[in-house]
Amino acid sequence: MSWTLSAEHLTDLARGAAILGTGGGGDPLIGRSLVEQAMREHSRTVTVLDPDELDDDIFVIPTAQMGAPTVIVEQIPRGTGPELALRALERHLGRTADATMPIECGGINSMIPLLVAARAGLPVVDADGMGRAFPELQMETFNIYGIPGSPMALAGQNGESAVLDTGADTRRMEWLARGLTVRLGGVAHIAEYAMTGEQIKRTAVPRTLSLALALGRSVREAREAHRDPVRGLAEALTGTLYSHLRVLFRGKAVDVERRTVEGFARGKARFAGKDGRSQLELQFQNEHLVALVDGEVRCVVPDLICVLEADTAEPITTGGLRYGQRVTVVGISAPALMRTPQSLAVFGPACFGLDHPFRPVEEITSSVRT
Amino acid sequence: MSWTLSAEHLTDLARGAAILGTGGGGDPLIGRSLVEQAMREHSRTVTVLDPDELDDDIFVIPTAQMGAPTVIVEQIPRGTGPELALRALERHLGRTADATMPIECGGINSMIPLLVAARAGLPVVDADGMGRAFPELQMETFNIYGIPGSPMALAGQNGESAVLDTGADTRRMEWLARGLTVRLGGVAHIAEYAMTGEQIKRTAVPRTLSLALALGRSVREAREAHRDPVRGLAEALTGTLYSHLRVLFRGKAVDVERRTVEGFARGKARFAGKDGRSQLELQFQNEHLVALVDGEVRCVVPDLICVLEADTAEPITTGGLRYGQRVTVVGISAPALMRTPQSLAVFGPACFGLDHPFRPVEEITSSVRT
Repeated sequence: MSWTLSAEHLTDLARGAAILGTGGGGDPLIGRSLVEQAMREHSRTVTVLDPDELDDDIFVIPTAQMGAPTVIVEQIPRGTGPELALRALERHLGRTADATMPIECGGINSMIPLLVAARAGLPVVDADGMGRAFPELQMETFNIYGIPGSPMALAGQNGESAVLDTGADTRRMEWLARGLTVRLGGVAHIAEYAMTGEQIKRTAVPRTLSLALALGRSVREAREAHRDPVRGLAEALTGTLYSHLRVLFRGKAVDVERRTVEGFARGKARFAGKDGRSQLELQFQNEHLVALVDGEVRCVVPDLICVLEADTAEPITTGGLRYGQRVTVVGISAPALMRTPQSLAVFGPACFGLDHPFRPVEEITSSVRT
Repeated sequence: MSWTLSAEHLTDLARGAAILGTGGGGDPLIGRSLVEQAMREHSRTVTVLDPDELDDDIFVIPTAQMGAPTVIVEQIPRGTGPELALRALERHLGRTADATMPIECGGINSMIPLLVAARAGLPVVDADGMGRAFPELQMETFNIYGIPGSPMALAGQNGESAVLDTGADTRRMEWLARGLTVRLGGVAHIAEYAMTGEQIKRTAVPRTLSLALALGRSVREAREAHRDPVRGLAEALTGTLYSHLRVLFRGKAVDVERRTVEGFARGKARFAGKDGRSQLELQFQNEHLVALVDGEVRCVVPDLICVLEADTAEPITTGGLRYGQRVTVVGISAPALMRTPQSLAVFGPACFGLDHPFRPVEEITSSVRT
């Protein structure tokens, strides 16, 4: 069912999106502020369209921000960039978008389409192509199930725009777009994966905006009721496409290595357990890729690894990790369409240079108790 | 006056263009072969339009190849790239080109527009925007006298295309296009500086295709008559916009340092004089920038520094320099419109990080005799 999103939803939505963002997808505060401001300026709420109810021939252009999160947080993005990218792609295609849509879940990238929607008066489709956040543009269920990302448009902070056309080769599109993004200063706004309602129904991860809102709300309500917010989160996931939550680790950040390399934030974070003996290592490329407890895999892509503040379950991005933070790290099972052999060939562990085979988090891990 | 260029002109033209290319602008042999093949396939000659006779509202899209010459010679370019770039820019602008034009003089870049012309049946304007070769896209008299390079289109070897729009900021366009070219494998075909006949008359260096043909022919005819081909060259320049030729040095290449850095071929070449005492150093970024004889400046950008084989006056590109080559190095005075303060601000010595002020070659150097 379609629903109306207004400014009072944004804090919960941004929190939930950052949880699904699995360490990446941008900072929730920046994303939320941009949308709040646009809603205020244009006196608008945003209509969110249920993907199952879309007309087959509705024309949708997804919008997003790309770049290393470490760079993104150091710039105040201009609110005009995503719309500029959308318009550049419309011009190239000679066709006007009926709606926009996220390409991933995340603190910023769940918000960018809402920003476009509030500014341009477009509805937003309640779906995306990653069902979480991933670092590269070909890592989309859209691409996996047959929709090319190209042509795509990019917009820079100074009003520059670019349109790339790499035909069916979406990996090549990512390669060129990443190079441009680095030259644009490390962050760009993008429009890509233009598609119809029929194609969305066939390829997207459905209802991830609703889910992000529900997750963010469950954490807040648990806090308000002085209940365990991680338990609130687990309950909110029950019955969704993401049905399993496992507590992988509780402890304290003791070491964070982070480098911005070729447009990505890459690194490792280590956490010491309360018992002083066990240790968790997370490896990330913008997003968390694998969680190793004392050297054993407890959760691996495409399953979701989320670092939460121990007391509040507020999500912490890979860029926000700091020495001494007390955290609860959870693993969440990815939807079935993200665990198929076709999907694992595009965003499974091997795509990130990891040797570990994919194994479902609910099969390899029981929640820790302490 | 307009004239007809046919396949038998190409060897002389490519040679003359490589001389004006001042070490860059691509390999004459590759450029010539591409045009010969296209003329044969399409059974065409090419109409060359005199810039002074252009209708004010004729619409011209220049075409070229960009990338480090060191990379270009290692790839056999596909003949379709420049036309693909032209069509991408036409599509973006919603306007069809009436003609194409070179952006610089050089073994390849004087040829690329002829390739487009032969394939697409378009005329070519007898002018360009550098009057020689320069390494960067903003280094154009077009830009200096008020025509933005943007929007521009790029095409890669695998059929990829990109359109960049940086508004009036042509330096920013160069920065983004260079990054894309590196990611496209080091070489791209481009279309940029779309403009009208009126704008060409106001901003271009006129009749550089005719001049290249005359220079190449003068060298060949001098060889055939067993006369000094460098003298032939000097005579052919008399009465043109490039009126002064100075022999800077005669000697042997003793040292060549060349690196491909950020999409450019940068380096130095050293030559020992016949007397065994004096030494010439050339510094280059794709093209030769400054000639120092025993530490003293004898010729500096934008004046032209051309390395010629000692016996034949065949031009040698910066990529073709080899230990032991016997050479005559000449300096040629650049046209007056390339020596204005506005021009020196865009492609004078300081733009390449050189401390030497610009001084005209005819004022600082007398031809060596030996």
